Amino acid sequence: MSDSLVCVKDFEKHAFSVLPRNALDYYRSGAGAEETLVHNRRAFSKFKIRPRCLRNVSRRDLSTMVLGQRVEIPVGISPTAMQRMAHPEGECANARAAQAMGTIYTLSTIATSSIEEVAEAAPYGIKWFQLYIYKDREVTKRLVERAEKAGFKALVLTVDTPMFGLRLADIRNKFVLPPHLKFANFMGDKATGINTTDTGSGLNNYVNRLFDQSLEWKDVKWLQSFTKLPIVVKGVLTAEDALIAADLGVAAILVSNHGARQVDGTPASIEALPEIVKAVGDRVEIYLDGGITDGTDVYKALALGAKMVFIGRPALWGLAHSGEEGVKKILTILKTELDYALAITGCATIKDISKEMVVPQEYYSKL
Amino acid sequence: MSDSLVCVKDFEKHAFSVLPRNALDYYRSGAGAEETLVHNRRAFSKFKIRPRCLRNVSRRDLSTMVLGQRVEIPVGISPTAMQRMAHPEGECANARAAQAMGTIYTLSTIATSSIEEVAEAAPYGIKWFQLYIYKDREVTKRLVERAEKAGFKALVLTVDTPMFGLRLADIRNKFVLPPHLKFANFMGDKATGINTTDTGSGLNNYVNRLFDQSLEWKDVKWLQSFTKLPIVVKGVLTAEDALIAADLGVAAILVSNHGARQVDGTPASIEALPEIVKAVGDRVEIYLDGGITDGTDVYKALALGAKMVFIGRPALWGLAHSGEEGVKKILTILKTELDYALAITGCATIKDISKEMVVPQEYYSKL
Amino acid sequence: MSDSLVCVKDFEKHAFSVLPRNALDYYRSGAGAEETLVHNRRAFSKFKIRPRCLRNVSRRDLSTMVLGQRVEIPVGISPTAMQRMAHPEGECANARAAQAMGTIYTLSTIATSSIEEVAEAAPYGIKWFQLYIYKDREVTKRLVERAEKAGFKALVLTVDTPMFGLRLADIRNKFVLPPHLKFANFMGDKATGINTTDTGSGLNNYVNRLFDQSLEWKDVKWLQSFTKLPIVVKGVLTAEDALIAADLGVAAILVSNHGARQVDGTPASIEALPEIVKAVGDRVEIYLDGGITDGTDVYKALALGAKMVFIGRPALWGLAHSGEEGVKKILTILKTELDYALAITGCATIKDISKEMVVPQEYYSKL
Amino acid sequence: MSDSLVCVKDFEKHAFSVLPRNALDYYRSGAGAEETLVHNRRAFSKFKIRPRCLRNVSRRDLSTMVLGQRVEIPVGISPTAMQRMAHPEGECANARAAQAMGTIYTLSTIATSSIEEVAEAAPYGIKWFQLYIYKDREVTKRLVERAEKAGFKALVLTVDTPMFGLRLADIRNKFVLPPHLKFANFMGDKATGINTTDTGSGLNNYVNRLFDQSLEWKDVKWLQSFTKLPIVVKGVLTAEDALIAADLGVAAILVSNHGARQVDGTPASIEALPEIVKAVGDRVEIYLDGGITDGTDVYKALALGAKMVFIGRPALWGLAHSGEEGVKKILTILKTELDYALAITGCATIKDISKEMVVPQEYYSKL
Repeated sequence: MSDSLVCVKDFEKHAFSVLPRNALDYYRSGAGAEETLVHNRRAFSKFKIRPRCLRNVSRRDLSTMVLGQRVEIPVGISPTAMQRMAHPEGECANARAAQAMGTIYTLSTIATSSIEEVAEAAPYGIKWFQLYIYKDREVTKRLVERAEKAGFKALVLTVDTPMFGLRLADIRNKFVLPPHLKFANFMGDKATGINTTDTGSGLNNYVNRLFDQSLEWKDVKWLQSFTKLPIVVKGVLTAEDALIAADLGVAAILVSNHGARQVDGTPASIEALPEIVKAVGDRVEIYLDGGITDGTDVYKALALGAKMVFIGRPALWGLAHSGEEGVKKILTILKTELDYALAITGCATIKDISKEMVVPQEYYSKL
Repeated sequence: MSDSLVCVKDFEKHAFSVLPRNALDYYRSGAGAEETLVHNRRAFSKFKIRPRCLRNVSRRDLSTMVLGQRVEIPVGISPTAMQRMAHPEGECANARAAQAMGTIYTLSTIATSSIEEVAEAAPYGIKWFQLYIYKDREVTKRLVERAEKAGFKALVLTVDTPMFGLRLADIRNKFVLPPHLKFANFMGDKATGINTTDTGSGLNNYVNRLFDQSLEWKDVKWLQSFTKLPIVVKGVLTAEDALIAADLGVAAILVSNHGARQVDGTPASIEALPEIVKAVGDRVEIYLDGGITDGTDVYKALALGAKMVFIGRPALWGLAHSGEEGVKKILTILKTELDYALAITGCATIKDISKEMVVPQEYYSKL
Repeated sequence: MSDSLVCVKDFEKHAFSVLPRNALDYYRSGAGAEETLVHNRRAFSKFKIRPRCLRNVSRRDLSTMVLGQRVEIPVGISPTAMQRMAHPEGECANARAAQAMGTIYTLSTIATSSIEEVAEAAPYGIKWFQLYIYKDREVTKRLVERAEKAGFKALVLTVDTPMFGLRLADIRNKFVLPPHLKFANFMGDKATGINTTDTGSGLNNYVNRLFDQSLEWKDVKWLQSFTKLPIVVKGVLTAEDALIAADLGVAAILVSNHGARQVDGTPASIEALPEIVKAVGDRVEIYLDGGITDGTDVYKALALGAKMVFIGRPALWGLAHSGEEGVKKILTILKTELDYALAITGCATIKDISKEMVVPQEYYSKL
Repeated sequence: MSDSLVCVKDFEKHAFSVLPRNALDYYRSGAGAEETLVHNRRAFSKFKIRPRCLRNVSRRDLSTMVLGQRVEIPVGISPTAMQRMAHPEGECANARAAQAMGTIYTLSTIATSSIEEVAEAAPYGIKWFQLYIYKDREVTKRLVERAEKAGFKALVLTVDTPMFGLRLADIRNKFVLPPHLKFANFMGDKATGINTTDTGSGLNNYVNRLFDQSLEWKDVKWLQSFTKLPIVVKGVLTAEDALIAADLGVAAILVSNHGARQVDGTPASIEALPEIVKAVGDRVEIYLDGGITDGTDVYKALALGAKMVFIGRPALWGLAHSGEEGVKKILTILKTELDYALAITGCATIKDISKEMVVPQEYYSKL
C-alpha cells in the first residue's frame, strides 16, 4: 500500500479515509469558513522559482544550523495536539521519526504523551517544547522545568492563542478527546486535565477555562526570568510584532497562522513571511509553518528568508498511516523533493538558495 | 435541528429549503445577472486580517456608540421589505430580537408590520425608520411624524432607489405580496397600498407608480426642515456623493449597494467603503451593509472605517427558521465570531481594531 | 414561451436549442480556442459602475445623435452574415425591428437578403451597409452605388478581415450555406456567389478566393473617391490604427474584434476601447461591438467613451425565436435594462453617463 | 478519423486514448504537482494580441533564418526521449516530417533511434543534436563527433538537467523503456545503455548514475574546444544565466523549463522569455519551447522576442496518431494557424510581428 503513496497528498488522502471523523476533523479543520486553510497551501503557487543552470551540484548538503544545533534537513515537526488520536504511539512515534531523520520534534503542551515519555522515546533527537501559558502560572512554570530537565532544547511559546479559534467541524462534532486518551502532561491533575464531559467543542471549553487571555509581551520577560532555554515565538504574522519580539531578545520567530485554525482571513503564512524577514531577519532566526505539502514549498520558504520550516498535519497523516515509519516516509519524501529542487535549481547547499531565486507571480506581469 | 446550524450559511441553506419560491426569490435575488450579489460576499476575501499577538484580551467589550447611543454589538438590522413573508411575526419578531441583543432595528417603509406595531413589540430597543420619499410628499411627512411619535431614533433615507432594480427572478415569478399580507404603514390607503393584481413584478410597478424619481440632494433639506431626527443616508457608493451628504449635515452614511438589488456591476460595498471613509470619515459616522456573512466580515468592515454594520438577508434566514429566536441566534453567531476575531487578533474593544489590521490582498504581492 | 424569456441569455439558450448545428455553430463560434469569445463577455465584469444618488431622473431620454442622425437607443445592429439561416425573413425582419425601435441596422455584404430587399422592408429605418472589398474592385463599387441608391446612410468598412478566421466548429461541420439560401447581393453572379460545393468551411474558401488581401489604409481614399457616404471603420483594436483612420478622415471607428471570430487572443473589445477613445475620441465618433449581453454592458461602453454599441449575436437569437418580434424583444430588453441602469445611477440622459462612473476593478484594490 | 482532428488538442486527446499508460505518462507528465505543466499553456492566455488592420498581407512568408539557415516555419521539433514508444518509426518518422516541412528536428541523446539512423532517414532536413554530458566525458565527445559526421548542424546543450525531475506518474508506474526498445546511441554499450531491470522510475536511476552533476558553465568551453558546431543552450529561465551564456559565446538560447518536467513552480517559459530577450536579445538568437498548442502561441512567442519556437509533446501526439504523416499534420496545423494569425494581424512576414503587437493582460487594466 505505502508503495503507492509517493507524495504528501497521497498520505493525506489515505488519512482522510482511515481516521475517525472526530479526530480527522480536529486535525484537518481550520477556523471559520476555512478560506485561509485553503489559501495557506495555494499561496505557495503565487511564488515562482527561478532556477539557475550549470552549477556544480554533485555534492549536496541539506543540513542547516538552527539555534546553534545542526539539523539534517530544514523541515521539522510543528506542535500538534493529541497525536495519539492518529496512532497509538502518537507523540513518541513522531519524535522517534524526527530523531531518525536528524531533525527537530516539537511537543505540544496538550499532548497525549508526556514530556518524560517523549524524552525517553527519542533521547538523542532535538526536542523543543511548545508552551501555552495557563492562568495558573505555576502550571506553566512546572512544565518548563520538566522540559528543561528532560533535555528539551527550546521553548516554543505560542503567542496567537488567547483562546482557540472557532472550528465549525469540531463544534458540529462536539469534539472530545477519546476517553482512553489523556492530556499526558497533566496526568492526575484535575484542574488542567481535559474534561471529557464538556459539551460543544470540549477543547474550546478547556482552553477558555484555563489559558491566560491577559498575556502580554512583557510576560515573555517573566518566562525569561526562570529559564535559560532559547524562546521561539510562534504565531507572529506582522512586522510590528516581530520587532517587539526581537527587541525582547527572543531567539527565533516561527511565522505561522496556527495552521489556519485561529481566525479565518489572515494571510497565508508564506505571504506574511517577507515582511517579517525584512523587519528582523538580521536579528533573529525565522521559521515558517503552514501549508507545506511539497519540497518546493520548503524551497520557496527558505528563499524568502526562513531558516527552517515545520510541518504539522503531514506528520499526522504519516502517523495515521504507520506511526514512526509513516512520519519518516513523509520526511523522506520532503527531503527527496527538496534535494531534487536544490540540484535542479543549481544549489548544492541550503545557503545557495538566494532570495533572487523565488519571486512573486507579479514579477512576470511586467515586461 | 437548530443545534446543527452553527453559522449564517447554515441558516441560509435552511431558509432556501423551507421558504416558498415567491418569497425566497424576493429576498435572495439581486439585480440583473447577479454578479454583484456574489461579489458582495466574495470581496471580503480580498481583504486580509493582520492579527496582533500577546495583548491583554481577557476583558472584551463589543459595544460601540452610534449616533450617541450605546449598542451592544456593532451589528444591526438593515431594512428589508415585507418580513412577514419569512415568519408570521415578521418585523415585530425581528425588532424584538434586535432589542434583546441590544442593537439597532431598522424598519422598512414597505413593511408588513406598521411603525406602531413594531414600536409596541420592541419598546426598549433602538429603532430606526427607513424612508422612501413618495411623489406625494405628504405621505412621507406623515410617516416621519409617526416614526418620531413612536420613538424611532433616526431616519434612514434610502438614496439609491428612484426605482427598484430589475430582479429577474421576481419578473419570472410575477412577484406579488401574498394576499394575507399588507403594506402595514399604509393600511386602508388605496393610493399607497400595494396592488396585488399588478402583473409582472408587482413591486416594481408599485415603486414606479409612487416613488419620487425627481428627488435631489436638496430634498434632504426639505426633510431636515420638519424633523429633528438624525438622518442616515443609505446607498452611497462614491466619495463624491459622500461629500455632498456630509456638506448637507447628515448624521451618518450607510455605504450600501442595496444588497446588490439595484444595478448589477457596482463594487461590493466593502470595496466602496475605503474611498468614503477617506473622503468624510472624520465628519460623519459611516456604516456598511452588503454581504456580511461572518464575524470576520464585520471585523474587516470596522477596520476599514465603518462604525457599525447592518445585516439584511441573514436576519431573514433567522426569521424563517424560528422568528425572534432565529434572529437572536444569527446575531449571537455573528457576535461570537466577532468576539473570537477580536480576541485572537489582540483587540479587547472595537476601538482596538485599527486600520493597519486589515489590508487588501495586494499588500502581499509586494515583497 | 417568450413570456419566460426575460434577458438576452434566455434567448441565447432558446436559440441553442432550436437552431440547426450548421447555422448555430456559424453564429456562435469564435476563432481558435475561443478564449476571446468568452473573454469578450467576461471582460465587462472587470469594469465597475459607480452610481450617483439623488439626481432628478424622472424624465429620461435614451436617444443620442450618431453621424448627425437621432437614434432612439444607443444600441444598433452589427452586421452578421446570412441571417436567413436564423429565420426565413432574415435581414428584412432584423431591419424592420431596428426601424421599429428607432435604431440603426447594418446590412452585411454577404447577406441572404439584398440591399434592395432590405431597403424595401425597412424604408424609414436608418440603414448602414457593411462592406468587404473584393479583389475585383468593380464588385465593391457596384455594391456601394446600390447602397447609396437604396438610401443607406453610411458604409461600415470592415478592416480586420483580409481573410476569415479559423473557426474550428465550421471546419468540423464543413460549413456551407444551406442550398435554399443565396448571397443575395450577388444573385446570378457566379464569381461572387458562394459555391456550395466547396469542402471544408465553404465560407473560408469563398473569402480566400475573393477578398482582397492586399488592402491598405490608402484604399480608404479610393473608397472616398467615389462615395460621399460617411465611412465607419470597423475592426480597429489599437490606438495606432485609430490614429491612421482619423487622419484619413473617416467618420467613425467601430471598436470590434469581429465577435472574437478572427484571431483568438485579442483583447476584449471593451478592453481595447479606452486606448482608442484616448487617442482619437475628440476627432471621430467611436462605437463598440462584442459581448454586449446586458444593459449594464451598454452603460459601461458608453461611460468608457463609446457613442453607441452594436449587437450581432443577440439579434440573431431574437430572429431565431420569432423574427422581427424577437429582435424587438431583444432591443426592448436592452433598452429597459439600460433605462434602469441610467435611472439608478443618477443619469437622466446618455450624456449624463460620465467617465468617472465606470472604473476598472483595480480601482478598488487601492485603499 | 484524422479528418476530424483539426487542432493540436484533438491529437492530444487521441494520443491519450491510444498510448499505453507507461509511455503516455512518460510523455505527458510534469514534475511534482504539475502546476507548471498546466501553467506553461495557460500563461499564453495572459498575453494579448493587438492586431493591426489594412496592411497588405496578400503575399505571406513564414520562413525565417535560424543559425544562418533558412527554415520554412518558425516551429521546430524539440528533443524528446524515446520516441519509438509513440510509433515504431519514432525519431526517424519525426525527423522526416520536419524535413518535409522545411524545419528543424532535434534528436535527443537518449533516443530510440541512433544519430546515424536519423541522418539516413532525413538526409536533407536541418538536424540538431541534443546533448547530455555524461560523467564519462569521452561518451559525450564521441556523441558530438558522430553528430558532426552525420551532418547535424548544431548542438543543443541541455543545461537544466543535473538529474531528471521527480515525475510522480513515472514513479507510480515504475517507468522502464519497453524491452524491445534501446537507447540507440549507446547500442552494445553496457555502461550507458538503460538498465531495464531498475526499479522505481528506471530513467531517474539511469540519469542519476550517468549524468555529470558537477557540470558548470566553464564546461561549455570544454565543449567549444573540440567542436565548431554552434551551441544552443537549452533550459535557461533567467537573465542572469542568459548573460553568462552570451558571454561564453553560445550561438543561441532556448528558453525552456524542460516541458515543466524538472522542478514544479518555475515560471511558464513564455513568462521567462521577456527578461532573457531584454538581457541578451541583441547578442544571441533566442528560441522558446513549452506549452505551444496553437498558432497564436507561436505568434506571441515571436512577438516577445523568440526567433523560433519548438514543440515536444505535440509532435509525439502526431507520431502516436500516424507517424510521419501525423507529425506533418501537426506542423501543418500550426503553420496554418500561424499564417492566419499573421494575415489577420496585418503581418506579411515573421519580421512584421513587432513587439507592440503582444502585451500582457495588465496592459488593459490601466485606462
